[in-house]
Amino acid sequence: MKPETIDRIRKFTEDRNWDQFHSPANLAKSISIEASELLECFQWSDEVYDLEHVKEELADVIVYCQDMLDKLGLDVDEIVNAKMSQNERKYPVEKAKDRADKYDKL
Amino acid sequence: MKPETIDRIRKFTEDRNWDQFHSPANLAKSISIEASELLECFQWSDEVYDLEHVKEELADVIVYCQDMLDKLGLDVDEIVNAKMSQNERKYPVEKAKDRADKYDKL
Amino acid sequence: MKPETIDRIRKFTEDRNWDQFHSPANLAKSISIEASELLECFQWSDEVYDLEHVKEELADVIVYCQDMLDKLGLDVDEIVNAKMSQNERKYPVEKAKDRADKYDKL
Amino acid sequence: MKPETIDRIRKFTEDRNWDQFHSPANLAKSISIEASELLECFQWSDEVYDLEHVKEELADVIVYCQDMLDKLGLDVDEIVNAKMSQNERKYPVEKAKDRADKYDKL
Repeated sequence: MKPETIDRIRKFTEDRNWDQFHSPANLAKSISIEASELLECFQWSDEVYDLEHVKEELADVIVYCQDMLDKLGLDVDEIVNAKMSQNERKYPVEKAKDRADKYDKL
Repeated sequence: MKPETIDRIRKFTEDRNWDQFHSPANLAKSISIEASELLECFQWSDEVYDLEHVKEELADVIVYCQDMLDKLGLDVDEIVNAKMSQNERKYPVEKAKDRADKYDKL
Repeated sequence: MKPETIDRIRKFTEDRNWDQFHSPANLAKSISIEASELLECFQWSDEVYDLEHVKEELADVIVYCQDMLDKLGLDVDEIVNAKMSQNERKYPVEKAKDRADKYDKL
Repeated sequence: MKPETIDRIRKFTEDRNWDQFHSPANLAKSISIEASELLECFQWSDEVYDLEHVKEELADVIVYCQDMLDKLGLDVDEIVNAKMSQNERKYPVEKAKDRADKYDKL
């Protein structure tokens, strides 16, 4: 995201004084709740979905992820790169290519 | 995220030829599953949690969100700004300040 | 469930003195976490799944639902019948037959 | 649940011809979505919640669990007892008493 988009998310919370509600646990619940609303777009069909609705719900998940990064003072590139290093080890290309199995089944 | 972090996520998927599994519906399920693993860090306590574990699970959610943006060809700033415009309308500062109520209860 | 199955669930919690962790909020998180583990059985395919794993995860959801009924002193038949009355009103047969739409789209 | 409550759930589905939408994967999504709506009752507070709303959302989870039992032809007592046997082995009383740790941390 661009810095001005991130700033807008932060200003939204600050203007409403909502930091008081943004405990890490409450934000984890919120990410999960919004992820489920995104899933609801695909509840009865994998193929037919309302793209505008998907965009809104995906945005909600991303906004709460940003709130959680802010709350915990985390750097998104740092945590994502650390996890990608794990993923690359757990799913070596030669074993994982063309397979959807979990790493402990490869 | 920095362009090189996003590129790393994309390369990870491409190298394993996993685009075939990344239907929008499967990615929605995946975001929800990882969000729940993040929530599990707070299952029995809101105050005591393993920060390293939280970082890993939050990173997983963010990676799958990037996969979904890519799959649907979405621009993150565009969808987040569109949603923030909605949120700003639904939660006017004078009504929402210091309150955690849903917009239809304000 | 048979009374002896429900008694076994209750005894499991009592023997471990786990009622202290079973706040309604923690049980709601737990139901959601287990529901997500059930969903994980279908993460990459709707058709191919491990039935034994599905049975275990579905059982976990049901056990935590029973814990929540117990914690809140609720009667399962009472709350399900009250909700079914709502559902029957929201989804009249003549409108909802053969359609997966949400009630506000019927 | 009483047999007549279970019959009411089954009749609801049959009258609307909704078995066509009730694939195991769709029911797993539905259980997860409803579990998240239950969680939403506790999004910003663990202590203050709307009991009537909790009852409705918990009932929704239970109804979809029954739908899944029916779809897969499962006996609830059988799967719950099998899982309780596992749980009793994974969480021996002498180790797990008064502790909320996961079995691999005991």
